[in-house]
Amino acid sequence: MLSNHFQNGMESAKLLWSRLPNSDEGVDGEGAEELGQYKKSDGTTVESLDYEVIENDAYRQEQAKRGKLYTGYSVAMKWFFALLTGIGTGLAAVFINISVENFAGWKYSLTFNIIQKSYLAGFLVYMLINLALVLSSVYIITNFAPAAAGSGIPEIKGYLNGIDTHGILLFRTLIGKIFGSIGSVGGGLALGKEGPLVHTGACIASLLGQGGSTKYHLSSRWLQVFRSERDRRDLVTCGCAAGVAAAFRAPVGGVLFALEEVTSWWRSQLMWRVFFTSAIVAVVVRTAMGWCKSGKCGHFGSGGFIIWDISGGQEDYSFQELLPMAVIGVIGGLLGALFNQLTLYITHWRRNYLHKKGNRVKIIEVCIVSVITSVISFGLPLFRQCTPCPEADSNSGIECPRPPGMYGNYVNFYCSNKKEYNDLATIFFNTQDDAIRNLFSAKTVHEFSAQSLLTFLVMFYSLAVVTFGTAVPAGQFVPGIMIGSTYGRLLGKFVVSFYRKLNIEEGTYALLGAASFLGGSMRMTVSLCVIMVEITNNLKLLPLIMLVLLISKAVGDAFNEGLYEEQARLKGIPLLESRPKYQMRNMTAKEACGNQKVVYFPRVVKVADVLSILRSNNHNGFPVIDHTRSGETLVIGLILRSHLLVILQSKVDFQHSPLPCDSRGGALPIRHNLTEFVKPVSSKGISVHDVHLTPDDLEMYIDLALFLNPSPYVVPEDMSLTKVYNLFRQLGLRHILVVPRASRVIGMITRKDLLIEDNEDSVALELQSTSVRGEEGDRRKFRRNTNAEQPLLDGLLV
Amino acid sequence: MLSNHFQNGMESAKLLWSRLPNSDEGVDGEGAEELGQYKKSDGTTVESLDYEVIENDAYRQEQAKRGKLYTGYSVAMKWFFALLTGIGTGLAAVFINISVENFAGWKYSLTFNIIQKSYLAGFLVYMLINLALVLSSVYIITNFAPAAAGSGIPEIKGYLNGIDTHGILLFRTLIGKIFGSIGSVGGGLALGKEGPLVHTGACIASLLGQGGSTKYHLSSRWLQVFRSERDRRDLVTCGCAAGVAAAFRAPVGGVLFALEEVTSWWRSQLMWRVFFTSAIVAVVVRTAMGWCKSGKCGHFGSGGFIIWDISGGQEDYSFQELLPMAVIGVIGGLLGALFNQLTLYITHWRRNYLHKKGNRVKIIEVCIVSVITSVISFGLPLFRQCTPCPEADSNSGIECPRPPGMYGNYVNFYCSNKKEYNDLATIFFNTQDDAIRNLFSAKTVHEFSAQSLLTFLVMFYSLAVVTFGTAVPAGQFVPGIMIGSTYGRLLGKFVVSFYRKLNIEEGTYALLGAASFLGGSMRMTVSLCVIMVEITNNLKLLPLIMLVLLISKAVGDAFNEGLYEEQARLKGIPLLESRPKYQMRNMTAKEACGNQKVVYFPRVVKVADVLSILRSNNHNGFPVIDHTRSGETLVIGLILRSHLLVILQSKVDFQHSPLPCDSRGGALPIRHNLTEFVKPVSSKGISVHDVHLTPDDLEMYIDLALFLNPSPYVVPEDMSLTKVYNLFRQLGLRHILVVPRASRVIGMITRKDLLIEDNEDSVALELQSTSVRGEEGDRRKFRRNTNAEQPLLDGLLV
Repeated sequence: MLSNHFQNGMESAKLLWSRLPNSDEGVDGEGAEELGQYKKSDGTTVESLDYEVIENDAYRQEQAKRGKLYTGYSVAMKWFFALLTGIGTGLAAVFINISVENFAGWKYSLTFNIIQKSYLAGFLVYMLINLALVLSSVYIITNFAPAAAGSGIPEIKGYLNGIDTHGILLFRTLIGKIFGSIGSVGGGLALGKEGPLVHTGACIASLLGQGGSTKYHLSSRWLQVFRSERDRRDLVTCGCAAGVAAAFRAPVGGVLFALEEVTSWWRSQLMWRVFFTSAIVAVVVRTAMGWCKSGKCGHFGSGGFIIWDISGGQEDYSFQELLPMAVIGVIGGLLGALFNQLTLYITHWRRNYLHKKGNRVKIIEVCIVSVITSVISFGLPLFRQCTPCPEADSNSGIECPRPPGMYGNYVNFYCSNKKEYNDLATIFFNTQDDAIRNLFSAKTVHEFSAQSLLTFLVMFYSLAVVTFGTAVPAGQFVPGIMIGSTYGRLLGKFVVSFYRKLNIEEGTYALLGAASFLGGSMRMTVSLCVIMVEITNNLKLLPLIMLVLLISKAVGDAFNEGLYEEQARLKGIPLLESRPKYQMRNMTAKEACGNQKVVYFPRVVKVADVLSILRSNNHNGFPVIDHTRSGETLVIGLILRSHLLVILQSKVDFQHSPLPCDSRGGALPIRHNLTEFVKPVSSKGISVHDVHLTPDDLEMYIDLALFLNPSPYVVPEDMSLTKVYNLFRQLGLRHILVVPRASRVIGMITRKDLLIEDNEDSVALELQSTSVRGEEGDRRKFRRNTNAEQPLLDGLLV
Repeated sequence: MLSNHFQNGMESAKLLWSRLPNSDEGVDGEGAEELGQYKKSDGTTVESLDYEVIENDAYRQEQAKRGKLYTGYSVAMKWFFALLTGIGTGLAAVFINISVENFAGWKYSLTFNIIQKSYLAGFLVYMLINLALVLSSVYIITNFAPAAAGSGIPEIKGYLNGIDTHGILLFRTLIGKIFGSIGSVGGGLALGKEGPLVHTGACIASLLGQGGSTKYHLSSRWLQVFRSERDRRDLVTCGCAAGVAAAFRAPVGGVLFALEEVTSWWRSQLMWRVFFTSAIVAVVVRTAMGWCKSGKCGHFGSGGFIIWDISGGQEDYSFQELLPMAVIGVIGGLLGALFNQLTLYITHWRRNYLHKKGNRVKIIEVCIVSVITSVISFGLPLFRQCTPCPEADSNSGIECPRPPGMYGNYVNFYCSNKKEYNDLATIFFNTQDDAIRNLFSAKTVHEFSAQSLLTFLVMFYSLAVVTFGTAVPAGQFVPGIMIGSTYGRLLGKFVVSFYRKLNIEEGTYALLGAASFLGGSMRMTVSLCVIMVEITNNLKLLPLIMLVLLISKAVGDAFNEGLYEEQARLKGIPLLESRPKYQMRNMTAKEACGNQKVVYFPRVVKVADVLSILRSNNHNGFPVIDHTRSGETLVIGLILRSHLLVILQSKVDFQHSPLPCDSRGGALPIRHNLTEFVKPVSSKGISVHDVHLTPDDLEMYIDLALFLNPSPYVVPEDMSLTKVYNLFRQLGLRHILVVPRASRVIGMITRKDLLIEDNEDSVALELQSTSVRGEEGDRRKFRRNTNAEQPLLDGLLV
């Protein structure tokens, strides 16, 4: 009988666990020694997410019970939310673009109007407008949404790898990111709006996934359809792809970025949904652009969205050009790795010294950077002698000089002669999008002098390094493209003068330079390649971009890690890489556990004991043991700290008897609303100090069999750590139990055992039930019993 | 002492296993009942591959022993072989293209010359040339390389999923595929050369990976650097990508095809190498095309390689057009699903009735299909009335009529008037590449009448269905594009006449139709989208292609599975899908094993017992048990049938004593050349009948501890089958041992245990060794012992 009880309890545990939303298991602020090493590096708390996606049959099993119709409904909901994410991210991107374009356009036209009279007054106005915009951005970040600083990509990457940084996906972060980006990009700092858009997309997806923000009373029960962590995480992946698709108008690039750079765990079903989201974004953005062409949104219609069409560029390349292109790749690798290293040092210094002094210092720092940027971008072109316009080529359709304040090449700025242009002003005193368009432009050979390009390269590189890590939303794509295209164009100048007879365009080299710098810094390959092709709209250069990227990534990898990995490490986000470390080959699972003591729970446990165990350590998962009839111990599952805390807080599952609850007969007394077990993303869960119990409560018992995960993954103690790592990483686990070697093998599972035909549902099950005999019989009987209880239990489901 | 022996033996087992190339475990022809269900459907034998990639630390550990330099060498080798694969596949593609173009060009110009005099004679010549080409193809396939029939993609997909179909990656298959494709495509059948090119790339990669073909004495010891199954499989993935990249000149599409459609298990490191291979192919193909432009390779230079540039097409689209485009998506889904279903029926019938009658029937069948194709493609245009040429538009640069036998639109065929053209002949009596180019062409509104398009659609669809599954190499991409672009253009005609004022191009609709049919039939999304963009060289239509693909895939999925999955199932290739089946949720690991009896081996086993056990069943893996000092049994690992057979065949590891070999002291007697354990791909391994033993041999013993895998993956008996499935599929396993629930937990592994810093190598290990005490001490001592033996063992390594 006892053994029956045991089995019965196990079955119910399975039932409940299968319905428990497999919520995050947070390391609480005060007990975070388990992850303590990641707290040292900075002040923020990093929380490890439960990424046990496989355990997450929860939602599915619930669906199974509700029947096929419900399954269809839930699939439809996933697509509907992907649609909403796409539309939301697309609209956010359009809003940011319109705002930035209008602020920047207004700023430049005002400045240009004033410098007709006085350059000093013009400079002051220019500087003050920049300062005001930047100040608004840094004010929002420091006082309202500190998590919105930076690009957000390392944090999102961490989230999808299983680490939840506090505050990263909140509603306030979303708002801070959108308005902060507008200020910082509009204010002319050396940073981009693309990285923040990825973060924006992820925030929108996350908020949709959990049904709005509870704090701001923006949530709706109707929206709360995703009760499983995995579904929410999938939606965030869609959001990332949507962000890239919106930022660069590169839908396929967005899918690949999400695949290659952001997610840690990927399924082909997800790919299709991500693809759909990207397509929706493309349609939304295109619609907005079409609407803007009518002139209703200011400067926007004529070029706000990134698309640096270089279709007028080089059609073909010769083998001689492969050498200079390889050189570009090497330079990109070197400068990219240097960029990563410099930003790492500076960010490290900032975190540990400067930013510890409070928000005031952060604000002052950004203001100083803004003033320096204004001085350099306005001042340097003044020292540059103007160049006479090249002879007019009526075919190319390129005017010279252009009136200042307009898009295009050959800007007339501080020139004595009307037929002259200032090449440094053309790239420096301009929005970054226009500067890139000018650098990429074809049919403008010798527009920029080597001296100007070099000056710009050095200055902008320094500005980008200094700006990185300040307390404003900051993307690295556009600065990277700026830097890369500058040295690319510089090299292109030499190539043009060296191979005189070839039809070489400097703009093509600028594009390759941009690719090489991004490759050398971010170390992406396929996604970056597709993004570059999509933003320049020129497929013919694809093999060249591929080769340049391969070289620059290889060179960069020789020195350090990619920008996002470096920054993630610095921010204390412990990413699990996709391949195990070298020295794991010589270690076993047991060695990895070290001499840590395993804390067990018995199946039925006294509340006072639970509390004292939870207080005495900071483990997040505890094995639960029970005794069989013959008195042997048996590991019956794993219970999570977070679930225990929910049980302790609500008290409804306490019982007076120290016996398993099923021994008293009747239905299993699960009184919990299952949504209680889900912790909202990016917020702290319940801490053990939030639990307040009376002395009476402490004398009661809890039957853990109802709440535990009955089959956690186990490995034998002497398994190679490489194998364990792969298991952990591939399945996105949170806990693995290390157990002794088995004494016997019950069966072997091979491929054929897992090939079950869909249409043989009942037949296969029937077959199964006749083939299982003996000891299995007992078990099945009890399963049937619990099945009989299902309708009752179903009533408890929300 | 005994326990020490035990531990010592285990350590040595670990050592050897870590060096054993984790070879395939073949189901031998005669004992294949374990996979019997996959043999029923057809005559060919299907073999399950060992896909336990994780176990494959073999190669790495060997590297570890040889030091960092060797690791560098092996990484360099991987890249070098990827380079070779790229070059080889690129050259093969160029060769196939040049041959097909020249055969087809010569055929058409001869025919056109003759029909100036007699249409009947022209038809006979045309039909006979086609017949001769097709006959050569089917002769090669039936007599020389039967595995080269069809597209080969389902088989490659199976191989990368872990199932080795016999003969699929042999040298003869490669040769058969190349020359067979030339014959079948040159012979004008309704099939393409793109699928076979993917297979060709995979064959080249596989042959390179195993160092050539032993049978044809083309192997070289120098080339045999890949001793691990995983490295070889990775190279095959590169080969697939190279095939697509070469077939469509779509390098990014190739990477995505390999990722989305072909591989089952993907790592980000591999992505980079695949990307590199694709880039190499792009350069090789471009070089060849540049060389051909000088006119040295016949018709090739002017258009042999697929690139249907539709850059002249529609630049923009309006919202009104989304409706007809959605309709195209729906039609694509319906026709695609119908295509899959029809081909499934016909192939099924062919396999079970027609092709069982021998090669002669296969040859006759193909000849009949060829004659029918010739009759239809030559005869139908004769019945079509010619259309007067449209008014000349000097800007478009399109002539009308064209002289027959040349590329381009408006072909004059069987027309009474010189200023007329035959629209059906323009698409039908032409190579498929040219027909597609004509269908995609812009600025040719109303070139094709609805009647012609409909006739062509019906006829070509039927031909494609009938041709599919005949004994020739056959790709489905080009026929799919033909069918799709026909109904796309047909719908485009209606759209053009309905929305008069819009700037609509029929060619754009043809492109969308092509995408929709491929989406509806093959069910790819991202890769197909990128391939379509790369072959048409028009990025602007990307969002439209995405939407059409999403619709057609969704519609198709409502009816049946994708083409490759259907065909794989029919061919008896049991693919493990990426998601577990629905009913697995209610099953446990133990239920999946059924009541199969587990066959154990003791650690030291008599040769006669091994032989009788191997003969008595067809299991491929056997647990090995040993006894501890206290007499308890303990599962010490898993031994593979294939390894046992190698040991039995070579006899060198037999011993007279029934005691574990390490109990006698001294070095461990491993006398095997480790390469003996690797089975070449696509060939049968050793069968138990190949083993010949003398009565003396039968009385000897084998110590299995030296050869077993000491830590196979285990799951507790009552784990949900969904979890087991994910473990199996994600890690690419071959065997999982089902064991009883553990009685205790030795430790828990969490994220922090797996975050080991690279630069703390020695520190971490030192820390480890001080923290491990007690029972661990013993163990480490023996590890040190075995470490001391390593130099000796290293001598045995090849």
